[in-house]
Amino acid sequence: MPPVPAILAIDVGGTTIKAEVASGDGVLAAGRCPTPKGEHALAAARDLGATLIAEAAASGVVVQAAGVVVPGIVDAARGTAVYSSNIGWDNLAVTGPLSAEWGIPVRLGHDVIAAGHAEYLTGAGRGAADVAFVAIGTGIAAALIVGGRVLDGNGAAQPGEIGHVVVRPGGPECGCGNRGCLEAVASAAAIARAYERATGEPAAGALAVFRAAEGDPRARVVIEAATVALADGLAVLTTLLAPERIVLGGGLAEAGAALLDPVAKALAGRVRVQPSPGLVTARHGERAGIVGAALLGQSMLP
Amino acid sequence: MPPVPAILAIDVGGTTIKAEVASGDGVLAAGRCPTPKGEHALAAARDLGATLIAEAAASGVVVQAAGVVVPGIVDAARGTAVYSSNIGWDNLAVTGPLSAEWGIPVRLGHDVIAAGHAEYLTGAGRGAADVAFVAIGTGIAAALIVGGRVLDGNGAAQPGEIGHVVVRPGGPECGCGNRGCLEAVASAAAIARAYERATGEPAAGALAVFRAAEGDPRARVVIEAATVALADGLAVLTTLLAPERIVLGGGLAEAGAALLDPVAKALAGRVRVQPSPGLVTARHGERAGIVGAALLGQSMLP
Repeated sequence: MPPVPAILAIDVGGTTIKAEVASGDGVLAAGRCPTPKGEHALAAARDLGATLIAEAAASGVVVQAAGVVVPGIVDAARGTAVYSSNIGWDNLAVTGPLSAEWGIPVRLGHDVIAAGHAEYLTGAGRGAADVAFVAIGTGIAAALIVGGRVLDGNGAAQPGEIGHVVVRPGGPECGCGNRGCLEAVASAAAIARAYERATGEPAAGALAVFRAAEGDPRARVVIEAATVALADGLAVLTTLLAPERIVLGGGLAEAGAALLDPVAKALAGRVRVQPSPGLVTARHGERAGIVGAALLGQSMLP
Repeated sequence: MPPVPAILAIDVGGTTIKAEVASGDGVLAAGRCPTPKGEHALAAARDLGATLIAEAAASGVVVQAAGVVVPGIVDAARGTAVYSSNIGWDNLAVTGPLSAEWGIPVRLGHDVIAAGHAEYLTGAGRGAADVAFVAIGTGIAAALIVGGRVLDGNGAAQPGEIGHVVVRPGGPECGCGNRGCLEAVASAAAIARAYERATGEPAAGALAVFRAAEGDPRARVVIEAATVALADGLAVLTTLLAPERIVLGGGLAEAGAALLDPVAKALAGRVRVQPSPGLVTARHGERAGIVGAALLGQSMLP
């Protein structure tokens, strides 16, 4: 049997590194491990990738290229992870060492931008030319596609930091040092914190607060505050960039209609000088980053 | 003597239509007239252009192409002025009738986007790849250049409506129907209104309030509120789009350092997750729109 060509895709998240080997036929192998801090994260990704490549080879699959996505500031052209406050690296060469170790071409990208690109090309953003993908998890960040082009930054800065748009001046403190940033009010982490403050009880994550809102008025108040703040943030994005469609992704998008409906309603009431964008949830869900990494890997094939 | 080739540039503003005939040697003829309402604005621009073309011809200058810029929503590809609340037209064909009347190719553009393009190519934005041009006059709007490309909309919507980003939730009413929009707080018109409210005296325009701020504490308070709000709006823009440089234009930019210094100071204190952009005033001043129109006209030359 001839060898099956495949791509290695790795998504280095703040807490977990996820990896897949995939071909046109689907996912052939997958693995994950916790994300160590600093440069150790790169070593962990390297070892996880090497393991999957070896596993694939044992079953007659040849991995021909790899895509790796990471958070923070990324210099894709130089293949360098410039900065990540979560992981704690600083100007770390990524593609050179990984390519040398794995013996295949490697392309680096930004996790949210790669995820947005995946939704745009193969997911819930398909068919629109102006799309914003907004990932809502521990933090909130966006990938912006304008006129069919992904705005992917210049190596020193990345567009799309919607989580740090101030929507509640004087509001809750944000990790960035400002107050009232969107992610300090409406991220999954912020929703869980707000529920704990309101009830004195621990929240089993933001999705649990969404589920509780059905019967618990305290949870309902928390969800309403968060969804209205999200609409405020998306209204700013819409006013500045006029996307036709906004795709909500990240862990919070798993809430589905319970998230989408109130945000869409509040957004429609706020957007005045631009057409109201369509609001949908991501198709690839939590896998959007790894699908984006696979697209980056594919782009390295001859 | 051989005929001198030249371009006709027309800037249809909310109150005045300005026109110039220019060649490589500079402005050869210029004219202006008040802007009538609705479709009459197009007729006035047509007649003003025809007059300048005839004047030019009389002195041996041949106008070979024209660029026309208008406010509102513009469909540049179809040559149609889609919508303008100020002028009051609705899906008005522009380039077809003007081209037929003048006998030359005509290209249509959006006034602020054309002005931003002019600053980017030949003015205060030169040399940067990621530039935001923010025009502050009766209203506030931006032209966004990302990775060397002008984001010019899709014919149904234009990016850059920074004047309608809400920076003061629950603040002053805006013409758009929302409250606390940047242009309801920090446009030239809003500054003059705020001074009149604070003092009971008429303001001779926003620039007069800037000049008065030197000795008049009431004017100083008004200017401080407006410049801090501007910094809030520019911080949102920077957080979302990470421009290297922001060029302030429009009538208010004539205030120079009295505007630039407090806005730059407040902006530097607000931008956390992106590099702080350079802040400069426009080079072409009030002529940026017409310089942009001339660039559009030039692009029609064979």
